[in-house]
Amino acid sequence: MSKKLEPFLEKMSRMDVDTLMVSDLHVIRWLTGFSGSSARVLLSRQKSLLFTDFRYGEQVKQEVDAMESVIIQNSFCDSIIEGGYVRGRRVAIQSEHLTVREAEKLGEKLKEVDIVPVEGFFDEFRVIKNDREIRWMKQAAAISEKVFEEILPLISPDVTEAEIAAEISCRHKRHGAEKDSFEPIVASGVRSALPHARPGKEKFRPGDLIVIDMGCVCNGYASDQTRTVALGRVPDEARKIYEITREAQQLGADSARPGMPGKELDALVRGYIEKHGYNDFFGHGLGHGVGVEVHEKPRLGKTSEDNLPVGSVFTIEPGIYLPGKFGVRIEDTVIMRENGVEPFQQLTRELIEL
Amino acid sequence: MSKKLEPFLEKMSRMDVDTLMVSDLHVIRWLTGFSGSSARVLLSRQKSLLFTDFRYGEQVKQEVDAMESVIIQNSFCDSIIEGGYVRGRRVAIQSEHLTVREAEKLGEKLKEVDIVPVEGFFDEFRVIKNDREIRWMKQAAAISEKVFEEILPLISPDVTEAEIAAEISCRHKRHGAEKDSFEPIVASGVRSALPHARPGKEKFRPGDLIVIDMGCVCNGYASDQTRTVALGRVPDEARKIYEITREAQQLGADSARPGMPGKELDALVRGYIEKHGYNDFFGHGLGHGVGVEVHEKPRLGKTSEDNLPVGSVFTIEPGIYLPGKFGVRIEDTVIMRENGVEPFQQLTRELIEL
Repeated sequence: MSKKLEPFLEKMSRMDVDTLMVSDLHVIRWLTGFSGSSARVLLSRQKSLLFTDFRYGEQVKQEVDAMESVIIQNSFCDSIIEGGYVRGRRVAIQSEHLTVREAEKLGEKLKEVDIVPVEGFFDEFRVIKNDREIRWMKQAAAISEKVFEEILPLISPDVTEAEIAAEISCRHKRHGAEKDSFEPIVASGVRSALPHARPGKEKFRPGDLIVIDMGCVCNGYASDQTRTVALGRVPDEARKIYEITREAQQLGADSARPGMPGKELDALVRGYIEKHGYNDFFGHGLGHGVGVEVHEKPRLGKTSEDNLPVGSVFTIEPGIYLPGKFGVRIEDTVIMRENGVEPFQQLTRELIEL
Repeated sequence: MSKKLEPFLEKMSRMDVDTLMVSDLHVIRWLTGFSGSSARVLLSRQKSLLFTDFRYGEQVKQEVDAMESVIIQNSFCDSIIEGGYVRGRRVAIQSEHLTVREAEKLGEKLKEVDIVPVEGFFDEFRVIKNDREIRWMKQAAAISEKVFEEILPLISPDVTEAEIAAEISCRHKRHGAEKDSFEPIVASGVRSALPHARPGKEKFRPGDLIVIDMGCVCNGYASDQTRTVALGRVPDEARKIYEITREAQQLGADSARPGMPGKELDALVRGYIEKHGYNDFFGHGLGHGVGVEVHEKPRLGKTSEDNLPVGSVFTIEPGIYLPGKFGVRIEDTVIMRENGVEPFQQLTRELIEL
């Protein structure tokens, strides 16, 4: 039981930290399997514990076996301190997650203790996915692919973006996903040029490009995919932009190598789009890690310092957005293997004309 | 345009604060109408500004008219500081929301400035709903009521909790809601005794009580309602517990008076349940405020210090949970008027036998 926690306890020792308080629920799910909406974990050499409230008394027993749990009677802070659960003199907190208020409260109540803000403590561990995590992510990807194929025939000039987005959410759940990994993006016509458009209430029009960016969560793990489809025949310029984007995405997938810096892969794909004169219209990074969060490390962007090790899972999603006209984005989630990346999605990347 | 912001600027003056940085997206939506997933607001006497990234360049123009917006090129912290947008010597932050990391970064970069952690700055303003907010909340409540009535005929021994929960999410969106205000709770049989059970994959059984707790979001505002229904005939003890819970809920609605402390109403309803011998089985607070967050101020619980002013919107939701047997919860969201509360829900509170 403590074996699973050993790498973290070792890192804590190296940092001279006696207790680490974990507050980020994504990390808690990743670390323990607990899926409730309210929890803290204390890691220490003496004893590691998960704290939650009475609502999750049954659930925590079913889900968590890596450590014992405590049902709090009060706020986390009060329960943890009054119960005497904090060990040692140096207590680390997740600085990228804990609020100023909770850190202040801890500091006030633990006067003899140093509160040590630590950023990204678990990142190096989370970035490498194990077989079970990969299985769950593939399961989520497969559900989203199935849903994508189901909703294509529903797209017509009689329905709206919002209706298709609702169908996506519905069908994710019907096929067994816990939920969407983010609100689906269904953006058509000029709105496809907005990378994060919210689904609107206007109907689709023949000749529109439609960007569909969607994902779901299975066993706590997210999927993420984008395809751009055409309703009927689209103008030549749209086809041309589609092809450049498709080639750029393919280039990214073909060029990724283990250990490569994320910004190098980003630069390579960006260079290809630039060569065609559209660099000003690719306004976001090439991709991002996916796991218990739909956006996590490694980042693939101009200023990223992250590498792409074997076992890391990330998206490759170039896009070209011509304001007032249309946009195209094509995205797969891939896992880095010894010899390059393997995509989770099997969906065609050719332009689908509905 | 600045008139809307005047009360906040006045409060800042009283607190000797020159700039207030707002980081909580719920507050930003409440304050400006902006619905994007990434933003900061700076309030100051000189100029108030909303910061977001390129993805929301179009959306921010459509949604926000109370202040100008800035599209950041970098992190929020860097863009805000390097752009020289911070005014004065005392800069307040939302201590219950801002992370330790971002506060540290601000402090490091703004060496001449005092960072002042402030908790719940907007609570006193948010707690009183205006007519527009009430209209939106009633709209959300009406959608959820319609969906509840639609899903009742679908409940049978042939379907599962998870399938009904998926239908609820679907239909919320189909009827025009932005999303669920929380993952629907559909808990039957012994699982109804878990106040926050996750919908399971077992089928309903005749004789089960089924707790259905659901809500949706319209224009950023949440709804929240719970009904407990019976699949076929339930045991006499279940009917008895149902009646006590229903009477307790009614007592809460009838007894609420403007300005009453939340804990007083909680104590009154709790006393009624205690009188019947079930106090140990009502393990949560009587209710909570609802607005842009589905759980906000005022709180109605044993230790709450909040009052219930005219214009406040909150839930009244007693429950009795007998472990290993069954549970009942009945919940309406109500608005406090001069002469008592008005419920948003019109659904019957009598036991529905399916």
